[in-house]
Amino acid sequence: MAHFTTDENAQYFACGYSCDHAIFLQFEGEAFFITDARYTLEAHTNLKNAEVIETTDLWQALVELIPSGLKELYFDPTQVSVQAYKHLQSALPDLKLVGEADYHRKQRIIKTPEQVALLKKAQELNKEAFDAFAKYLHTAHAPSEHFLQFKVKEFLTYSGEFDLSFEPIVAINANAAKPHALPSKDPLAEGDLLLVDVGLKYERYCADRTRTAFFKEGFSFSKEQSFKDKELQKIYDVVRKAQEFTIDNLRAGMTGKEIDSLARGVIDKAGYGAYFAHSTGHGIGLDIHELPFISQRSETIIEEGMVFSIEPGIYLPGKFGVRIEDLVAVQGSRAVVL
Amino acid sequence: MAHFTTDENAQYFACGYSCDHAIFLQFEGEAFFITDARYTLEAHTNLKNAEVIETTDLWQALVELIPSGLKELYFDPTQVSVQAYKHLQSALPDLKLVGEADYHRKQRIIKTPEQVALLKKAQELNKEAFDAFAKYLHTAHAPSEHFLQFKVKEFLTYSGEFDLSFEPIVAINANAAKPHALPSKDPLAEGDLLLVDVGLKYERYCADRTRTAFFKEGFSFSKEQSFKDKELQKIYDVVRKAQEFTIDNLRAGMTGKEIDSLARGVIDKAGYGAYFAHSTGHGIGLDIHELPFISQRSETIIEEGMVFSIEPGIYLPGKFGVRIEDLVAVQGSRAVVL
Repeated sequence: MAHFTTDENAQYFACGYSCDHAIFLQFEGEAFFITDARYTLEAHTNLKNAEVIETTDLWQALVELIPSGLKELYFDPTQVSVQAYKHLQSALPDLKLVGEADYHRKQRIIKTPEQVALLKKAQELNKEAFDAFAKYLHTAHAPSEHFLQFKVKEFLTYSGEFDLSFEPIVAINANAAKPHALPSKDPLAEGDLLLVDVGLKYERYCADRTRTAFFKEGFSFSKEQSFKDKELQKIYDVVRKAQEFTIDNLRAGMTGKEIDSLARGVIDKAGYGAYFAHSTGHGIGLDIHELPFISQRSETIIEEGMVFSIEPGIYLPGKFGVRIEDLVAVQGSRAVVL
Repeated sequence: MAHFTTDENAQYFACGYSCDHAIFLQFEGEAFFITDARYTLEAHTNLKNAEVIETTDLWQALVELIPSGLKELYFDPTQVSVQAYKHLQSALPDLKLVGEADYHRKQRIIKTPEQVALLKKAQELNKEAFDAFAKYLHTAHAPSEHFLQFKVKEFLTYSGEFDLSFEPIVAINANAAKPHALPSKDPLAEGDLLLVDVGLKYERYCADRTRTAFFKEGFSFSKEQSFKDKELQKIYDVVRKAQEFTIDNLRAGMTGKEIDSLARGVIDKAGYGAYFAHSTGHGIGLDIHELPFISQRSETIIEEGMVFSIEPGIYLPGKFGVRIEDLVAVQGSRAVVL
């Protein structure tokens, strides 16, 4: 399939290198990495099976590389601008530009054992960062939520060694119920609920993990938590049960929505269905969100080698939110937690 | 002018609020902020002169808001995807969609005194971060370039209080000559050249400043620097002269390219023209790079109230790079350093 992409993770997947000003172009067994002089040296060193084209005008270089016989060229219409598209249309009037959303993510939906190993390593480093953050919190002096959102990056990046998968979420009490809360300046105190949803990247593969904890002396981010508030404890137990039940019972061959309904069923039955307003999980790999979706609308059949999150939650506005998230790989037709 | 934008800074400029999943739509004195349930509460609190539209489908909501008589709708074709554009085209066949790159940046090219004051405050905080970073370096134990790129964020964000304008650059010796060097793990040592190009945001307005320093006991990021290497000292003096000459001699009424040639003239005359491969400056405001450009091709006439960087540099590949950057506002027809 002849295609081009400006997406960095799609480029990296196709040719082992990417940068923020490049087009990867592939057709009929030929592949080109079109970039400017700032990146050509690194591109030459890192590229696999693609030729470097140095230019000051990426789109014009692409136009000149298209062979006259080529009939169709695929691209992701969610990632290409109207300006670039119109330029190609007018420069290549005989070429059919075929927009297909997520075509490159579809190529990555099944992970190789090597890719699963990279995701596992990323998640292991992420777990260690949770432990180091907990240890820090044992001795911290009433840090604010605001400061903790900054401080957690020190542990996640191992002081700059790794990149983040996404902007970390550290939320206390009622803020854990808001998906986009502005961090508060109030100090963390004994008895608070602490929700931490964070991830780092290892060799470009993303980790992602959420724990909800009762903050007290010697607390940890394990799944065993005892809250003082009875309703909160009940909700925590429901979320944990939904998460573990889903992981234990999902199978290759199910659709994304069947897996979603495993988690949703537990929460619905406990009477909190209205407070679980997001999907149960998402695929993960080079992108923090990739295929498959584990949602109420996902018809995707889950297969061996897919990797995704399982992360149900219950959120009571103005009170608190609980979410527990792990990553799983489908192996031997079952979920294996990374 | 009827228009819509998904750009966060354009939204903020138009209505005092923005988020990462919204469309701002304006026509004939009416304005709408179209977003989903996650953001509507904050939108209601912060919006000025725009109505909140809550939806699960932004583009469909936009289609429904367009009055039947509307003839033209402007947008930035570099920021709208082919997918969104095609959806609008087919849903609104009688409406002319007019792509004009940077139309919203053109609206912001002249800053009000209040906006200049915010940029000045951002740059003042940025300068204090340079001083705090220097103080830290006085006592640090041979940190690597890699670690410093992490550590400098602590000072720039004031431990999480402010956002960054862009990913900080801290480069040592030969890496200062490469615009996209991978940070080295070698330790910073007495006698090294240290280039620091960083900025923070204050109330969404961006700071940006570069200093090149000779690292030794008690060093500072002032413009007074003494390097041991004679060629380096010569180059430093040329860059400093180019930067100060440009600031002293630019006037309202000149074009961007005339101002660029002030800096380039000094460097050309010293024989280093081939080693100054970027433009002299860029406008700054809500975006780190906005209008006007101060480049060899910029025909923009510089006017009272514009704010931009003046940042000439000389880069000897494999040896070292020198760049000095300040922000200026045009006031009383001259440049005033922020």
